[in-house]
Amino acid sequence: MRMRQDKTEKNDTKTAPKLPAVYIPSLIMHQAFLRITVPEKNPSLHSHDNFEFHYFAGGTGCFFIEHEKIPVKQGDFIFLRPGEMHHLVTGSAAVTHYIIHVSFPESEVLPIDMHKRICGRGMHFRYFFERLLEKFSSGNHQLSKSAACDFLSFLYELSSGRKRLEEEVIENALDYLHADPARRLRLDELSAEIRLEKFSLIRKFKLAMGVTPMQYALSLKLQFASELLIKTDHSIGAIAREIGYDEESSFSRAFKKKFGKYPKLWKTQKRE
Amino acid sequence: MRMRQDKTEKNDTKTAPKLPAVYIPSLIMHQAFLRITVPEKNPSLHSHDNFEFHYFAGGTGCFFIEHEKIPVKQGDFIFLRPGEMHHLVTGSAAVTHYIIHVSFPESEVLPIDMHKRICGRGMHFRYFFERLLEKFSSGNHQLSKSAACDFLSFLYELSSGRKRLEEEVIENALDYLHADPARRLRLDELSAEIRLEKFSLIRKFKLAMGVTPMQYALSLKLQFASELLIKTDHSIGAIAREIGYDEESSFSRAFKKKFGKYPKLWKTQKRE
Repeated sequence: MRMRQDKTEKNDTKTAPKLPAVYIPSLIMHQAFLRITVPEKNPSLHSHDNFEFHYFAGGTGCFFIEHEKIPVKQGDFIFLRPGEMHHLVTGSAAVTHYIIHVSFPESEVLPIDMHKRICGRGMHFRYFFERLLEKFSSGNHQLSKSAACDFLSFLYELSSGRKRLEEEVIENALDYLHADPARRLRLDELSAEIRLEKFSLIRKFKLAMGVTPMQYALSLKLQFASELLIKTDHSIGAIAREIGYDEESSFSRAFKKKFGKYPKLWKTQKRE
Repeated sequence: MRMRQDKTEKNDTKTAPKLPAVYIPSLIMHQAFLRITVPEKNPSLHSHDNFEFHYFAGGTGCFFIEHEKIPVKQGDFIFLRPGEMHHLVTGSAAVTHYIIHVSFPESEVLPIDMHKRICGRGMHFRYFFERLLEKFSSGNHQLSKSAACDFLSFLYELSSGRKRLEEEVIENALDYLHADPARRLRLDELSAEIRLEKFSLIRKFKLAMGVTPMQYALSLKLQFASELLIKTDHSIGAIAREIGYDEESSFSRAFKKKFGKYPKLWKTQKRE
């Protein structure tokens, strides 16, 4: 077999369409977490050095950003530039939202033109953010990096105007769970709500999210409790009952298992 | 409502787990395309200025890279460093492979440690690459950028060692179609092969890929023909018959519709 030496790219691109190359700037992803904001007496106006993105997964509230007052509700996607003073105020119920902090070392400017402060109102991105958080916090550095790429991909896709297809069943189940994190989960009710037979629901949810709906609901409840401990004056017993525990002691054990600390210590340490 | 001025990030990160920030380098995606390599008389050894990734979707062949001879088959994922001389040789049948060219402006080194030249042997990434190509070549610059992020995310995920879950039904249908691009598609046969009722198959495929299986198969056939026109001495009539057209004229019209040129002009222009 004779082989010609040919240093050009001619050969490989002969039948490929000519498309412009695309440039992606470097990126640092600092934080990615789910937060449950509870009504509090003294909300503190603050700012960050990085871009901050919020995706509102449940509840309603009001975002104060610089001199703007922006009502936010489930499905809203909001972003803040570095240095912008802001604070989120909730109504009587809690707001669950995913928060992502990123920066672009090459510039202080967002690489995409988001035009408005709110985009994607009414869209369903919970499943996307759940997978993102799972990868980011996996403890595997390569997976965390993959999560950062996913987020940038998401931003570009959002600003492209194309509708993103998400797994509807999972989205609806998360919708139900985030609507009221304190509610006692009844699988029959969830099953009826999203019109999926109970065992299919558990299997699909587990496959997509890595945990069962019950485990997910428990995790959400404990996270809710962790916020209540810091932001309110409710007693530990009252908080335990709020999220459906009859016994303060079993709540404390479950809390310790998730956060590594008993609620009492959590409350005093985080309040300082 | 009283608001405290608080410039630190304390508030937002109170209940978030402390995770290390991750850095993603800048990236340029130069090319992303599906290629059907046909047996040819004078394969030319060549190299590129960028990293080149191949995902083998169908057929078998042999990759000559520098002084190595690497047999490749369906499911292999291979990468080449800038400047590495290489050429792909196929057996008697065609090889379908996805090719991606990227570079990292900050360094000549791949940001991930791929260890070996081949990774992911036997994995199913066709659906992923189909979506990537669709986004990259959409004509929407933001979507093209999103595709570039998706690719980097994919590389990190691949090197993390985690198994990627893909839509199995679509993967199996693509498997069938890529196994022999020239074959006349019979929906009944495909339906039986992947064990999915015909109308469900069409609906699922259309939802995932944006086109029906028939449209996808036609596109693949015409791409196969475009390679045969350049790399072989087969007449246009013979190539038309090879991909299942009885009439050369209807083949020519379909070819013109996809590539904007009649096969005769394509053959003479590309060969120069």
